[in-house]
Amino acid sequence: MTGAYAGTGTTYVIGVDYGTLSGRAVVVRVSDGAELGASTLDYPHAVMDATLAATGEQLPPEWALQVPSDYVDVLRVAVPAAVREAGIDPQDVIGIATDFTACTMVPTLADGTPLNEVPGYEGRPHSYVKLWKHHAAQGQATRINELAAERGEAWLPRYGGLISSEWEFAKGLQLLEEDRELYDLMEHWVEAADWIVWQLTGEYVRNACTAGYKGIYQDGAYPSDEFLAALNPDFAGFAREKVAHTIGALASKAGSLSEEAAAWTGLPAGIAVAVGNVDAHVTAPAAQATDPGQMVAIMGTSTCHVMNSDRLSEVPGMCGVVDGGIVEGFYGYEAGQSGVGDIFAWFVANQVPGEIKDAATAQGLSVHEYLTEQAQVEPVGAHGLVALDWHSGNRSVLVDHELSGTIVGLTLATKPHEVYRALLESTAFGTRKIVETFNAAGVPVTEFVAAGGLIRNPFLMQVYADVLNMPISVIGSSQGPALGSAIHAAVAAGAYEDIHAAAAAMGRLDRAAYTPDPESAAAYDALYREYAELHDYFGRGANDVMHRLKALRRSARTPQAVSA
Amino acid sequence: MTGAYAGTGTTYVIGVDYGTLSGRAVVVRVSDGAELGASTLDYPHAVMDATLAATGEQLPPEWALQVPSDYVDVLRVAVPAAVREAGIDPQDVIGIATDFTACTMVPTLADGTPLNEVPGYEGRPHSYVKLWKHHAAQGQATRINELAAERGEAWLPRYGGLISSEWEFAKGLQLLEEDRELYDLMEHWVEAADWIVWQLTGEYVRNACTAGYKGIYQDGAYPSDEFLAALNPDFAGFAREKVAHTIGALASKAGSLSEEAAAWTGLPAGIAVAVGNVDAHVTAPAAQATDPGQMVAIMGTSTCHVMNSDRLSEVPGMCGVVDGGIVEGFYGYEAGQSGVGDIFAWFVANQVPGEIKDAATAQGLSVHEYLTEQAQVEPVGAHGLVALDWHSGNRSVLVDHELSGTIVGLTLATKPHEVYRALLESTAFGTRKIVETFNAAGVPVTEFVAAGGLIRNPFLMQVYADVLNMPISVIGSSQGPALGSAIHAAVAAGAYEDIHAAAAAMGRLDRAAYTPDPESAAAYDALYREYAELHDYFGRGANDVMHRLKALRRSARTPQAVSA
Repeated sequence: MTGAYAGTGTTYVIGVDYGTLSGRAVVVRVSDGAELGASTLDYPHAVMDATLAATGEQLPPEWALQVPSDYVDVLRVAVPAAVREAGIDPQDVIGIATDFTACTMVPTLADGTPLNEVPGYEGRPHSYVKLWKHHAAQGQATRINELAAERGEAWLPRYGGLISSEWEFAKGLQLLEEDRELYDLMEHWVEAADWIVWQLTGEYVRNACTAGYKGIYQDGAYPSDEFLAALNPDFAGFAREKVAHTIGALASKAGSLSEEAAAWTGLPAGIAVAVGNVDAHVTAPAAQATDPGQMVAIMGTSTCHVMNSDRLSEVPGMCGVVDGGIVEGFYGYEAGQSGVGDIFAWFVANQVPGEIKDAATAQGLSVHEYLTEQAQVEPVGAHGLVALDWHSGNRSVLVDHELSGTIVGLTLATKPHEVYRALLESTAFGTRKIVETFNAAGVPVTEFVAAGGLIRNPFLMQVYADVLNMPISVIGSSQGPALGSAIHAAVAAGAYEDIHAAAAAMGRLDRAAYTPDPESAAAYDALYREYAELHDYFGRGANDVMHRLKALRRSARTPQAVSA
Repeated sequence: MTGAYAGTGTTYVIGVDYGTLSGRAVVVRVSDGAELGASTLDYPHAVMDATLAATGEQLPPEWALQVPSDYVDVLRVAVPAAVREAGIDPQDVIGIATDFTACTMVPTLADGTPLNEVPGYEGRPHSYVKLWKHHAAQGQATRINELAAERGEAWLPRYGGLISSEWEFAKGLQLLEEDRELYDLMEHWVEAADWIVWQLTGEYVRNACTAGYKGIYQDGAYPSDEFLAALNPDFAGFAREKVAHTIGALASKAGSLSEEAAAWTGLPAGIAVAVGNVDAHVTAPAAQATDPGQMVAIMGTSTCHVMNSDRLSEVPGMCGVVDGGIVEGFYGYEAGQSGVGDIFAWFVANQVPGEIKDAATAQGLSVHEYLTEQAQVEPVGAHGLVALDWHSGNRSVLVDHELSGTIVGLTLATKPHEVYRALLESTAFGTRKIVETFNAAGVPVTEFVAAGGLIRNPFLMQVYADVLNMPISVIGSSQGPALGSAIHAAVAAGAYEDIHAAAAAMGRLDRAAYTPDPESAAAYDALYREYAELHDYFGRGANDVMHRLKALRRSARTPQAVSA
């Protein structure tokens, strides 16, 4: 049967999900995607955002570094532990695949040695991995954006008009301008997603996902030498010399497991290692959502939306569109909400009285669960509130990180659970704005699939269904990225014809798990109209108060500004 | 010496301040205003807002009733106790005066007997005192306002365009329409401020303050029979038959202490009893603020602003302007902020984590003090926030109780003390809006005088000085209304030529206690511009989201509306 699992005997694949603080290995049965064993290793050096471990030197604000050898430790420790927990014979493992945070960058020598492992450089902050949330290259990102807009670079609209300070070029330019010697020593500027595959196979292959979304690789080319030279004359050759490299399609085989990596992991040498990938994007097949129009929302502290389409369109405010960026053969779209679960967490940490925490504890509930229980029994609109979910700025569709959170409708009768609910709803309204923008741009969203930690809140899921007035399908795995990587490993190993077939057999989706309630949906329409009006008023220039408040805040906190 | 104290020997006056939950008597020395003794009695029946004490009958929402005999109990208990505490000879007391909440209304027979004391009527809710915060006559108030606007009644602009549901005519119309038998039985519809004077003297005299501010008495007339008949044909004679009565000027003598009242109080029969007055208005002389342009802000759960002027002007959004409404001979202006201290209290009760309460307790501070200490060390604008202080609606200058509270600029780094400070500031911005509106209407504010409970927060006072960019003078007494009443008693007793002379001798003011810091004032100008822009956007019709949210809230909470 075309596309069905073609092997004989019971075989397994390993998916390894590299997160911000730990790596998680999962053993998955190829025939049906059953998750048989898992193990997590916390990175020994975690995130270095205050001091450099090697020297104790203090790091500037907004820095976030990691140590590459921590990633290898995950292979040495978590992979064998997951295999042991699964109780399988390692010889039955036919492939391994990884996914990573992005954009997380490793500066290396020609052979992949990270610069921090080059003797004499372990004390230099710029020799380490720059984690995705290293935000110290904002100045460089701003220059990139201004210049690209000025020159009308064709690739800029592919990123919703904004290149992030988190991405390859901004971080690379920072390296050049702050530690020229290291920049010159560096032969490759490598996504960690690819660096770990390099460690597994001994071969360097760039993956099509980060090359496009983070490396500005569009229509077969990187930003031109002229563009880069205009940023900084010494940056002219950056793309050609340090970034460009063979690109591998997602779910294809990057190489075979090396003897060295076999020794680390206890897996058979020579098995397939898939091309690297990114945690959000790899989740799509785990949720059986590889078809055009299936938008997968990975909902956690923030939300990342990924969706395939057979059409190329410039959706306003998206994070990026990349040919083959999620699944080979489709245009992969990415959008994002900068703050979701972290807004709820901020509220619980900063605006919930002790009495409520005590009551939650007495009932054996978390504060989130308790507030949800109080909130969910009330009719839509009974709180009289509408909030803007911009506490962490707005990525899609306004692409403006100077925006901020707002709540309208407070009275002396307003209770904490009502504000909490208004915040939950505001993130659903933010999602609806994204869905409507995709629909209007000719890239229709036909199914909404939820994944990530927030799917554990059924009320939140129902709010999303009611606000979107669409059924919400929910991924059937709590470790979506690792399962998604395992599915990629199965395809790379040839067990399935393609990612769609593998997703159908191994992914898990509870389709239309939540369906909209017509009455609630109608009531939310009214609230969403209020959200949309405030969204445009505060977000599209009618009143730039949020920008001015942030500027006031910065100047008030800068001592010399006092005399201005 | 003209106007100076003219008596011989040491004499005293009694001021009695009738609040919402208790009455407070203070013994004051006539020569210098020294407060020598005080005593408070909590009303035995407090406020009846859930059930009627006599029957246990449940009251409808928004009702708030009191029992008139409780007020007499204050005379029987608190006055003698204050005299005892002062250690004076009661025979040296030369006068007594009272101030009251308003508009608080007593329905009586011709001799002043409250209807609830008429046998057979003690079980009828409408026979009791309707306290100022009885808000169940909103329907009647709305009809009064719509009709007055339609007919272009000349008195409507004297009240900033809005007659309150709290006032005499709305409450009277409710009585007519809900208990016709009691309405017909009622001979007088009496302000509690005047009813208590009636009990002291045996004579009914209306005071010029409530007659004007609450009884719509303007230019020598009440609303016409035609107007009242258009509201309800049976209401045509209301003003003539039940409201109108001899009006006494403030600080004049209403009568002499009766033998009966002398027995209650232990004071000498025949001493002067001053015309009744209102708590806020009586505070002006206690703060030596009886001259034109001195705006006295009585800052508590809400703020009431009173100011004299020699000019009659229609200030947009004021609560009222009354000839002799504060001091005989001047036009008395009143304005108000619906929510001030109660917004801060709401925040502390609903949005402050237990950790902060624990830390405050550990330092022996109230939560308000602790948050203030944290907030006050930060530069202006460092929180990046601006709030609208409309949690309880907006009286002046928008006259719109359907408005609601808002905060803009929240981030994941926003701390509770920052929100608290933004709320403090928002009330100062609201005050500045009122001051600017008076200035623009040709009734300039030349001095700002703070009184009331909130003067205990020096940081708040400094914020007001900086935001207004004016010095803030502060009343020198913690019992301003009772002292103010005592000053009125002294004038009524003939100890001073007029209220100005008495205020100069007996009032206490710390002039320019807080002066603006030029740097902070400049920084607040920027924040105030943001407040003003949001004020007009949300408050003047550009975006009626707050009205729509309140309507949604009401309809969501009304079961039958679900099917709409």
